[in-house]
Amino acid sequence: MTRALAVGVAGLGTVGAGVLSLLRQNADIIAARAGRPIAVVAVSARDRGRDRGVPLSGLRWYEDAVSLAEDAGVDVVVECIGGAEGTARALAEAALSRGKPLVTANKALLAVHGAALSRLAEQRGAALLFEAAVAGGIPAIKAVREGLAANRIGRVMGILNGTCNFILTMMRERGREFAEALHEAQRLGYAEADPSTDVDGVDAAHKLAILAAIAFGRPVAFDAVHIEGIRAVSALDIRLAEELGYRIKLLGIARRKDGGIETRVHPCMVPLAHPIARVEGVFNAVVAEGDAVGRVMLEGRGAGAGPTASAVVADLIDLARGRITPVWGAASADLAPVPSVPMTAHEGCYYLRLMVLDRPGVIADVTSILRDHGISLETMIQRGRAPGEAVPVVLTTHETKESAMRVALERIAALETVVEPPALIRIETL
Amino acid sequence: MTRALAVGVAGLGTVGAGVLSLLRQNADIIAARAGRPIAVVAVSARDRGRDRGVPLSGLRWYEDAVSLAEDAGVDVVVECIGGAEGTARALAEAALSRGKPLVTANKALLAVHGAALSRLAEQRGAALLFEAAVAGGIPAIKAVREGLAANRIGRVMGILNGTCNFILTMMRERGREFAEALHEAQRLGYAEADPSTDVDGVDAAHKLAILAAIAFGRPVAFDAVHIEGIRAVSALDIRLAEELGYRIKLLGIARRKDGGIETRVHPCMVPLAHPIARVEGVFNAVVAEGDAVGRVMLEGRGAGAGPTASAVVADLIDLARGRITPVWGAASADLAPVPSVPMTAHEGCYYLRLMVLDRPGVIADVTSILRDHGISLETMIQRGRAPGEAVPVVLTTHETKESAMRVALERIAALETVVEPPALIRIETL
Repeated sequence: MTRALAVGVAGLGTVGAGVLSLLRQNADIIAARAGRPIAVVAVSARDRGRDRGVPLSGLRWYEDAVSLAEDAGVDVVVECIGGAEGTARALAEAALSRGKPLVTANKALLAVHGAALSRLAEQRGAALLFEAAVAGGIPAIKAVREGLAANRIGRVMGILNGTCNFILTMMRERGREFAEALHEAQRLGYAEADPSTDVDGVDAAHKLAILAAIAFGRPVAFDAVHIEGIRAVSALDIRLAEELGYRIKLLGIARRKDGGIETRVHPCMVPLAHPIARVEGVFNAVVAEGDAVGRVMLEGRGAGAGPTASAVVADLIDLARGRITPVWGAASADLAPVPSVPMTAHEGCYYLRLMVLDRPGVIADVTSILRDHGISLETMIQRGRAPGEAVPVVLTTHETKESAMRVALERIAALETVVEPPALIRIETL
Repeated sequence: MTRALAVGVAGLGTVGAGVLSLLRQNADIIAARAGRPIAVVAVSARDRGRDRGVPLSGLRWYEDAVSLAEDAGVDVVVECIGGAEGTARALAEAALSRGKPLVTANKALLAVHGAALSRLAEQRGAALLFEAAVAGGIPAIKAVREGLAANRIGRVMGILNGTCNFILTMMRERGREFAEALHEAQRLGYAEADPSTDVDGVDAAHKLAILAAIAFGRPVAFDAVHIEGIRAVSALDIRLAEELGYRIKLLGIARRKDGGIETRVHPCMVPLAHPIARVEGVFNAVVAEGDAVGRVMLEGRGAGAGPTASAVVADLIDLARGRITPVWGAASADLAPVPSVPMTAHEGCYYLRLMVLDRPGVIADVTSILRDHGISLETMIQRGRAPGEAVPVVLTTHETKESAMRVALERIAALETVVEPPALIRIETL
């Protein structure tokens, strides 16, 4: 057996400690599959004194992550620091500019600076691997970028944030409102004290930007992703969705359409017959639709020490075996400069739920506004009767232009008989 | 861009023609992802005159597949002939013994002769790739062998035969019996005129043997697989399963247990809460459970020209990129000689459905036999009453030894009041 692959791990939080622990625990099978041992030789973290549950003796210690990249005895740098800027970015640049391979779980870094980092990696002939950045333990990057490489992908989408999926599952199963379910998620450690990156859809958007780049073989374009989170989803809409045969999921969706690629993260109504509707709790899923293969779905744990370490170590095994793939699946020169299509150009079906005063003429007012904007209704349901009081009215539309929907919605919201801001949820068809 | 990878395709049935057609249709993206064009230069098939819907002009033609492997202008041989023996085997040996990489969709060949072929491949330094051999378009081999390579796998299982899954789905949805549903599958082209390889579980067993070898990093052992097909599954049992919260699926299951690896293909009762229970029709699924990653499930189309070609061409792209993996995930010397555990050593829960004469004392006779063999009941349901006539009695057991169950079953079947052969279906827990 050849000499060990010497790894430097920067960041010893949940992910970094998980990587150390997995490399130790499964050292025998990892060596067999990698064709050589994979050994951590150096680590970097801020606080040397903290107990992280993994032995660190015998490992070189760096206060400064960049110095770890400069260690000539480190063959590959594993970045587990997180964040698009600061130390993580400096470390990534330091490693790649030295031609040293970088393995990272950092979706923010890849989404925001992936274009520059991949050019740097290509110039210096250094591998840049990031299986753990999207959908945690699910080998989604490998499956889409290598396993489905023969396909022209029409749509790739996923449940890319376990925190949001857990909250939506709690809301549905227990009839809770968002705030309560978030609190429960925080109590269980599935949501952070400041949950905005997760619940506002930003984390899912980072992952979608990466997924879209590899699925469509084009440069990563995080700024083009339309982002809405789940704060506005109500228990009422979740219940009404079920009655209509849908489940509400926060999806990241990238779709090829005339004129380019549409990328968006927002709550969706998904038909119960679609397997992604059944992916619950902290599980993630990725669906890819290829012209040859049809629909492929992958499901598994999207976060946590074990699943994330599983993906990071898989990248290390690929490196040890010399299985190298260009960052976005093809060399920069071979990426297609496909433009992004803005959300205002979106077309799809919509669910619209209003709270209206139960009074004659209200439905006529609403439906005539929709007609004025060329929006055709599929169903209209008024739930319950309470003369003079507010009752929910649910409308679903046929294929409609987002631009028309937005204008109509503004007019509807301004009606005197519409007593709450309308709830608008896009329906994602099969 | 470097020169094209020159491919020779042997066998121009559904799969072979599908490969030619996909390589042509997506030539641009395939070249970008492979880093070079992939071009078919030679083909081999029996009947030169037949129209296969793909243009063959300009390609060298070989009557004899082995000659195709000898063509010095062929860089890689794609075997789409099928069958464990005869031409397919001769071609595989001819290619590998010349050090020429082989891509195959042939699960029978791999399951039966995989050990010898992988030794040959290793000796000659030739790659042997077979993504299409298991679960068609789902990148299951890649996901398990590379994506989950850091994990010690505890169990790997799957719906590995679309014909059987289609038949079982038809039986459940339409209340049909096996023979009718098989006929419908044949009419739609999902089952062959002689369906035995599919419905008797042999095809699923070929795939399971391959999957188990890569999941557990041990030599392929097809002979050790316990095989039962779906001919004995009745519409009644499917209905009763649903009432108990289960769905009947033909699963291939490989599980690590004390003493070795258990591999078995048989109809299973799967809890409706498990995502594999919802995989219907011709779709396949593979579930792998790793110590770090937890449960990962992959779902997609297991057969057909498009999905199979998608997998074959993914292998060609891996070859073009130089992404090479040892056949079973590790070099022969690093495979673990884990023994196979025979089915008689199996332990699990069972569903037992009897047709008994509705007469006092019958249940006592049955349950005392079960007690004699140390079999503990979880539920017992007698469906309906028809004094003096036959009624179904359903029993489910707690964890039980297969050996005890077999002896008890023989004694129960011999009871005068038990009027039909008992139906025994194993329950697969989550």
